[in-house]
Amino acid sequence: MSTYIAPVRDMQFVMNELAGLEAVTQLPGHEESSPDLVEAIMDEAGKFASEVIDPINSVGDRQGCTWKDGVVTSADGYKDAYKLFVETGWNAMPCATEFGGQGLPTLVSSAVQEMWKSASISFALCPMLTTGAIEAIANHGSDELKNTYLPKMVEGVWTGTMNLTEPQAGSDLSAVRSKAVPQGDGTYRITGTKIFITWGEHDMAENIIHLVLARLPDAPPGVKGISLFLAPKYLVNADGSLGDRNDLICASIEHKMGIHGSATAVMSFGENEGAVGYLVGEVHKGLGYMFTMMNHARLNVGLEGVGVSERAYQHALSYARDRIQGAPIGDKSGVAKAIIHHPDVRRMLMDMKSRTEAMRALAYWVAAQLDHAHNNPDATKAKEAQAMVDLLTPVVKGWSTESSVEITSTGIQVHGGMGFIEETGACQYMRDSRITPIYEGTTAIQANDLVGRKLAKDKDGNGIGGAAARMLIERIRMTVDMLSANSSLSDIAQELSAALFAYETATEWLLAHFDSEPQQALAGAVPYLMLTGIATGGWMMAKAALVAQAHLDSGSTDDFYKAKLATAHYFAAHQLPKVAAYAAEVTEGSASVMSLPESLF
Amino acid sequence: MSTYIAPVRDMQFVMNELAGLEAVTQLPGHEESSPDLVEAIMDEAGKFASEVIDPINSVGDRQGCTWKDGVVTSADGYKDAYKLFVETGWNAMPCATEFGGQGLPTLVSSAVQEMWKSASISFALCPMLTTGAIEAIANHGSDELKNTYLPKMVEGVWTGTMNLTEPQAGSDLSAVRSKAVPQGDGTYRITGTKIFITWGEHDMAENIIHLVLARLPDAPPGVKGISLFLAPKYLVNADGSLGDRNDLICASIEHKMGIHGSATAVMSFGENEGAVGYLVGEVHKGLGYMFTMMNHARLNVGLEGVGVSERAYQHALSYARDRIQGAPIGDKSGVAKAIIHHPDVRRMLMDMKSRTEAMRALAYWVAAQLDHAHNNPDATKAKEAQAMVDLLTPVVKGWSTESSVEITSTGIQVHGGMGFIEETGACQYMRDSRITPIYEGTTAIQANDLVGRKLAKDKDGNGIGGAAARMLIERIRMTVDMLSANSSLSDIAQELSAALFAYETATEWLLAHFDSEPQQALAGAVPYLMLTGIATGGWMMAKAALVAQAHLDSGSTDDFYKAKLATAHYFAAHQLPKVAAYAAEVTEGSASVMSLPESLF
Repeated sequence: MSTYIAPVRDMQFVMNELAGLEAVTQLPGHEESSPDLVEAIMDEAGKFASEVIDPINSVGDRQGCTWKDGVVTSADGYKDAYKLFVETGWNAMPCATEFGGQGLPTLVSSAVQEMWKSASISFALCPMLTTGAIEAIANHGSDELKNTYLPKMVEGVWTGTMNLTEPQAGSDLSAVRSKAVPQGDGTYRITGTKIFITWGEHDMAENIIHLVLARLPDAPPGVKGISLFLAPKYLVNADGSLGDRNDLICASIEHKMGIHGSATAVMSFGENEGAVGYLVGEVHKGLGYMFTMMNHARLNVGLEGVGVSERAYQHALSYARDRIQGAPIGDKSGVAKAIIHHPDVRRMLMDMKSRTEAMRALAYWVAAQLDHAHNNPDATKAKEAQAMVDLLTPVVKGWSTESSVEITSTGIQVHGGMGFIEETGACQYMRDSRITPIYEGTTAIQANDLVGRKLAKDKDGNGIGGAAARMLIERIRMTVDMLSANSSLSDIAQELSAALFAYETATEWLLAHFDSEPQQALAGAVPYLMLTGIATGGWMMAKAALVAQAHLDSGSTDDFYKAKLATAHYFAAHQLPKVAAYAAEVTEGSASVMSLPESLF
Repeated sequence: MSTYIAPVRDMQFVMNELAGLEAVTQLPGHEESSPDLVEAIMDEAGKFASEVIDPINSVGDRQGCTWKDGVVTSADGYKDAYKLFVETGWNAMPCATEFGGQGLPTLVSSAVQEMWKSASISFALCPMLTTGAIEAIANHGSDELKNTYLPKMVEGVWTGTMNLTEPQAGSDLSAVRSKAVPQGDGTYRITGTKIFITWGEHDMAENIIHLVLARLPDAPPGVKGISLFLAPKYLVNADGSLGDRNDLICASIEHKMGIHGSATAVMSFGENEGAVGYLVGEVHKGLGYMFTMMNHARLNVGLEGVGVSERAYQHALSYARDRIQGAPIGDKSGVAKAIIHHPDVRRMLMDMKSRTEAMRALAYWVAAQLDHAHNNPDATKAKEAQAMVDLLTPVVKGWSTESSVEITSTGIQVHGGMGFIEETGACQYMRDSRITPIYEGTTAIQANDLVGRKLAKDKDGNGIGGAAARMLIERIRMTVDMLSANSSLSDIAQELSAALFAYETATEWLLAHFDSEPQQALAGAVPYLMLTGIATGGWMMAKAALVAQAHLDSGSTDDFYKAKLATAHYFAAHQLPKVAAYAAEVTEGSASVMSLPESLF
């Protein structure tokens, strides 16, 4: 087994030279995040990921979690690792300072999150869910809820969950049936069954704070009748100590393809007198609150795609350097060499490396836009940044996760027959990655959001859609112009320009068809999401190439920049041509998606 | 769980209307395979696959095989199913009549094999390995070996294995170290360790006949010093009864990502006095014998890709028809419907269906070429058919298996969150499929074979490479011309024409670069294999569209032809544009594959 080494240099390159860390640290509220501090955090986080989390990842995969009579026991080492995680302050790191967090920019916390996810998606899900719950309570909860729950949750001794899905309500949350009945004392009694509740029950925290979507007895049907409640595993006494066990229980846990280290719980609320719940925010607005959190959670799942791809790459690279097999073609010595010298293994590694770099760059860039959207005092800049966040969050989520399944699969392939043997470790990354295009909204849900809300309904002052997309297109065009001025980057200029043309064409086609033929437009939504990911990932790699080339032209002999140029050229030649193929699916292929009647399948 | 239903109609369409079953049944040796008989066989095989094999597939996945003290016990139901398989004559079906087989054309047996593989790759591997061993013994063994072993192996009461791989000799078999020492009595004593031996040990057959690659003491190093031996688990007495246990044992079995129902054995030969082995054919020619079998085995693994894709499609389709979730966009009723009515689910199902059909068509077409190559009395036709077999076997193997990983992954995605739950059954198909691009030669091995031996070294009378590829290109061009004459197929004509151009361009680039820059040529080998698969699969779908359109133009109202047209149009719009993107990787991207020094990864 290889050991995870955080790619700190590439992370810092992206933060500093593509995502504008310096500007982010100068935003109001982030002044304490100096570049020196960020560097120290990255180094420490990298160590924690390598030394504490990475070693338990395969243990969790093998052992899974065990359920007995409602009690879930995590795999060996998880409890201790989580305890250390909390004690060393990592849980609080991304949280606002108000309740004990460090208030780091999203840009920085995203890089740190990537490390946790590389080391173990299963483990990282626990703090990720807690952070999401904290955000919902902080933004929408009463002061009493905030004061009672947030300090412990920020610290991490209590963890959080999101209870959305029910058996009949998956992608369509309007079908939620769980009930919440007011008790007249400000509390509610909740009944219902929730499924797919990540870390819904476990033995790593003193208390588990469930956020639950449910309906009041008089609630209107559909999305406008869903409210958000907080229901703790143990009720909390006025002095903050833990009281009675609430009437909610983990009925079972799922047997999954991957992320075995994390319990995926079926939660049963109110089998007896009803689970005590507290309303978060106003009645009937629960779904909206969930969606405000969702963008951040989706960025985070996109980072899972980045993280697991990086981990699979490192694992495959380690094997490719060690495994001796055959003399490479054209090698006149005839002596067997490490397989990294064979052209197709090299191609696979370049594929994994360059795509992971592109995904990382786009995710961090969007994270930086989120910081600007929240904190930039210039209203226009904040608004433009928010437009980029809205447009590209579904892309980071959908494209990075779909790609991660392919990249982790390539990781298996690099290992040959050994790749299929579980003990080799490559399978786990693929099995773990396979959930990422599904949860927090499937790729289709992301793509529908992108094409519907973020494109067609994103109208400018004249009622014409695609406002943010056009802004993005102009920015990419500026990069093409800069590339064209540099003869050693002309191949990238050419490929990016062709990709941009295809992106524009597909965008205009969707804008022209969404209102009149929404089914046909959405039939091309996933291909459009994928092409947007490749085009914007290619844009990031092109920007990286400009930076690297400038350093080398100024006399730098840093190998990092040479490597970055190599992966940028590779991405341009191997990934950007796919944009046109996806665009053809959108513009030429939509009709054929719906042409076969359901009965003839 | 869905139940597998053999897609007999599509299989017969491909056999009759694309692969020329009638002409194949008229070849010498196949006269008894009348179309009526073939139809009866297909129906019976479909029933056997659905009723006997499909039900044990998930049992094998859950239980796996168990190993204790060298003894391997298969999962519940496997032994009984195999017994019935043998008793009803299915094992003998593809074998030559000489030793008790039915001598069916490869075209027909390929369709039947696809059914076994759809129902359970794990189960189907056992007869597949036996068939391969039979072929090697029949083609290269002495009359004594043939008479002693083949009748029982053809019947299936004894099974066969191929013992090639050793820990240090995976893709590079020249590194084989196992030893065979002549005993002076015509027998040899074999010592060595073989890994990844499929069904190397089990409880379903009375005897297991191992074919083993090993070196004589005086053998030259490398590929020219490897001989092939037959080493039975139980020695066979002169009267055909079973004698002593041979000195070979299953040392352990692997813990794999998929195909849990089949034991993947570590075989230890000669831990005591040496395993008794019998030379097959001449000394030092073992690797050549293995390679003559390999083409057939590779076609068979390609059929695994087809079969598991079909199974995953049927499973996803069943769920998509049942699962109610949300009202599709544009549906004014607002009533929740089965997810098959949602555009992206429809796109995923069309993707799975059309690609599986294309893969099936190409595999069967190549199988028919194999029949012509072996049995066509017209030497020119036989030679041309063999050229197609040689060129396209690595494509059927590599493209169908790589595609099957994507298609089975899409099958999971159709299920949403339920797809990730093992009990849903969709995961197994993806986990099972993941081995197919690895064993019997990885995709890179297939691609190197395609670009090296089957393209660059396939010289015509003037010493110019690419002879078979040019023949193929001319045939595809004829289809483009026929499509162009039919206005309702002009979209397919256009896409196939563009794909053909890209295929030609990539082919010429490789021919121009292979001798001078072999590393760069092979850096594009896998993209070239994939584009060849899509282009030729698209060619098959285009031919299918011509047939279907002709039937409909002649007044047929058969829904099957309407559906075939729909999948052909879909394939043209969604898959064929990828050919140009892959071609760009070959012609523009090879340099960037090798540009990053190994130390900078």
